[in-house]
Amino acid sequence: MSKTLLDQIKQANPIITNVANSVTVDQVANVQNIIGASPIMSSDPEEAPEMVAIAQALSINIGTLSTEPIHQMKTLMAEAYRQAKPVVIDPVAVSSIHYRQKIIDELLALGTPQIIRGNAGEIAYLAGLDWQANGIDAGSGEIDLVKVAQTAAKKQQTTILLSGPTDIITDGHHTTKVANGTPLFQVHVGSGDMLTGLCAAFVAVSPDNPYQAAIDAATTFAVAGQLVAEAMPTPLPGSFYPQLLDCLFNITAADVQTHAQVTEVLTHE
Amino acid sequence: MSKTLLDQIKQANPIITNVANSVTVDQVANVQNIIGASPIMSSDPEEAPEMVAIAQALSINIGTLSTEPIHQMKTLMAEAYRQAKPVVIDPVAVSSIHYRQKIIDELLALGTPQIIRGNAGEIAYLAGLDWQANGIDAGSGEIDLVKVAQTAAKKQQTTILLSGPTDIITDGHHTTKVANGTPLFQVHVGSGDMLTGLCAAFVAVSPDNPYQAAIDAATTFAVAGQLVAEAMPTPLPGSFYPQLLDCLFNITAADVQTHAQVTEVLTHE
Amino acid sequence: MSKTLLDQIKQANPIITNVANSVTVDQVANVQNIIGASPIMSSDPEEAPEMVAIAQALSINIGTLSTEPIHQMKTLMAEAYRQAKPVVIDPVAVSSIHYRQKIIDELLALGTPQIIRGNAGEIAYLAGLDWQANGIDAGSGEIDLVKVAQTAAKKQQTTILLSGPTDIITDGHHTTKVANGTPLFQVHVGSGDMLTGLCAAFVAVSPDNPYQAAIDAATTFAVAGQLVAEAMPTPLPGSFYPQLLDCLFNITAADVQTHAQVTEVLTHE
Repeated sequence: MSKTLLDQIKQANPIITNVANSVTVDQVANVQNIIGASPIMSSDPEEAPEMVAIAQALSINIGTLSTEPIHQMKTLMAEAYRQAKPVVIDPVAVSSIHYRQKIIDELLALGTPQIIRGNAGEIAYLAGLDWQANGIDAGSGEIDLVKVAQTAAKKQQTTILLSGPTDIITDGHHTTKVANGTPLFQVHVGSGDMLTGLCAAFVAVSPDNPYQAAIDAATTFAVAGQLVAEAMPTPLPGSFYPQLLDCLFNITAADVQTHAQVTEVLTHE
Repeated sequence: MSKTLLDQIKQANPIITNVANSVTVDQVANVQNIIGASPIMSSDPEEAPEMVAIAQALSINIGTLSTEPIHQMKTLMAEAYRQAKPVVIDPVAVSSIHYRQKIIDELLALGTPQIIRGNAGEIAYLAGLDWQANGIDAGSGEIDLVKVAQTAAKKQQTTILLSGPTDIITDGHHTTKVANGTPLFQVHVGSGDMLTGLCAAFVAVSPDNPYQAAIDAATTFAVAGQLVAEAMPTPLPGSFYPQLLDCLFNITAADVQTHAQVTEVLTHE
Repeated sequence: MSKTLLDQIKQANPIITNVANSVTVDQVANVQNIIGASPIMSSDPEEAPEMVAIAQALSINIGTLSTEPIHQMKTLMAEAYRQAKPVVIDPVAVSSIHYRQKIIDELLALGTPQIIRGNAGEIAYLAGLDWQANGIDAGSGEIDLVKVAQTAAKKQQTTILLSGPTDIITDGHHTTKVANGTPLFQVHVGSGDMLTGLCAAFVAVSPDNPYQAAIDAATTFAVAGQLVAEAMPTPLPGSFYPQLLDCLFNITAADVQTHAQVTEVLTHE
């Protein structure tokens, strides 16, 4: 993997404008700051043009919706596309709630984001697949998830990061799997949101290669989580979050490379 | 106490729909997730029917009010009563702020919740007592608090969990005291909100016995806090929260039973 | 420095009404509670008069703006000035976003706060200086920052706490520098917001001497952070926050005095 992007973030301190959800906004701000980016949170549409103008990337998380945040997301995204700033979207719970499907469809109609980060069910929705009917949740395996991610990438014309025990990154043509991680990511509420926030930090310094940005974000995050979990005598999901920040602050690109279990998936198109 | 409910949560992974307050929403989501439930946060009334339909319990916390959350609380509660899903209410600061008394009265007019969790002053308001005039805050003792809780339970026709150094749980007919705990609960902002969130997780797997759900939630939480505090060389209220999550993740029903100081209060009605 | 204010907070448990930002509201509540104050968060204008009436100080943070919070800030501030309660303002990001300059100007038109806490860029805006053009950010030195703070204090007729590697406190006539601290404050998102929250707790017990309140708040916070950082084998910005709360809970006025590097700046007016 590229050593460069993590170092570039630390050198360039890119500003990331976020619409986070109210549950994990503190975590997203802290993980971006600790990796070397400068997070700002935007909630007032009147600030939108300035908030996009000073930023190198925009991160949109639909975890907690209501009228004002939805309006804010649309205003910021329209501005970002107009100003050619990279956009990352996290379609939280879009697989379970029909209302969120309506909202995500409206957001995706505004333009094409650089990266969409979601779990298997969320990405399955974006692939146009019926997740429960397909039974993937019941364990039909990893090969299906690669196809789910690739289908979503082609349908949405974007880079997909399908995160889970194995992360799958694909732009529809190339696909990479990251096998690092720890089950503690699932026990801690906010892991996915933090990874989305990191995607925005990485794509801010790699706007022309969102596929590599998503691979590096996923690998850095997964390796850090794995190192923290491996150092614990027993799983400690409450201590996991502060220690994950500690690790992400101190981890180097060389550390990530040493531990990375990253493989390209060969597919016939 | 019943071993069963904690294990049932871990097996059933009930979905809990929450309107949390903006201060401690992260804590509520994490404590529910760590105990084995699946928290979702709801802020848009348009999602309300779906959010209730997929959930096994609804938790309402009035800690941070404004027009949209109040509307959301009412919409979700009306849906929950219509769909016969258990409801837990946390009447934050209702004893101090008249405006919140108006709001809680409106919420309670929508139907009867399964559990109300509050501190002594909040429960005193729901009992129709003048807290400061009664001087309970000045130390008139534990017997009064049992009467306060019982009066509130009878008046509101619900299970009351009055939390404090000793937790009191009553449905108006039966009353139980939980003597476990630690003063660190009072020093950490969010302890009460987390306990309310746990009540929702426990009642989700025990909808027909909210009294037992409240006892088990209070006992599990109080024992975990006590074990964490006892392991500290000196009181560390900042480290208390992550370590409390660590403990709640690893604690078993047998651990809780070993340490529980739970006694039934015998009363003549 | 005065031993008294920290002890007075622990004895009087002043109630602090806050409009915090959505990112760090949990941190502000916890730091105020741990130091001995009682935080409440206010988001509904209908509560404003009561929220001010029961409080000994009001803390306003403009970190996350939208229509309702702005209205709430104005309502609470007007009430606080009417009721002669001390007001602390944190003009988050006012140096970068023109829209926030408009809002802060509107807030400052309502009356004179007792303390304004900001970083160098934010205070430079309040001093009427062009921060980037002045090149202070590029390192033109500490003397300039003292002048920036003094100019802002005179222009705004208030006590300024300009926080950074060295904190500068001035009422325009007297100026004090606090040299304690740690670079971890900059890595942790929420440090500035917590310091603002502490200013409100200290001025609540020292309403007639906001200058001393700001000095004591800054010194207590900076010494605690320094002690936590010095005890770490390597910088751990994720563990910093819980350990900072641990330290602030246990620190005494004597501890603060032992470690304080506080000097008065002699200036000719």
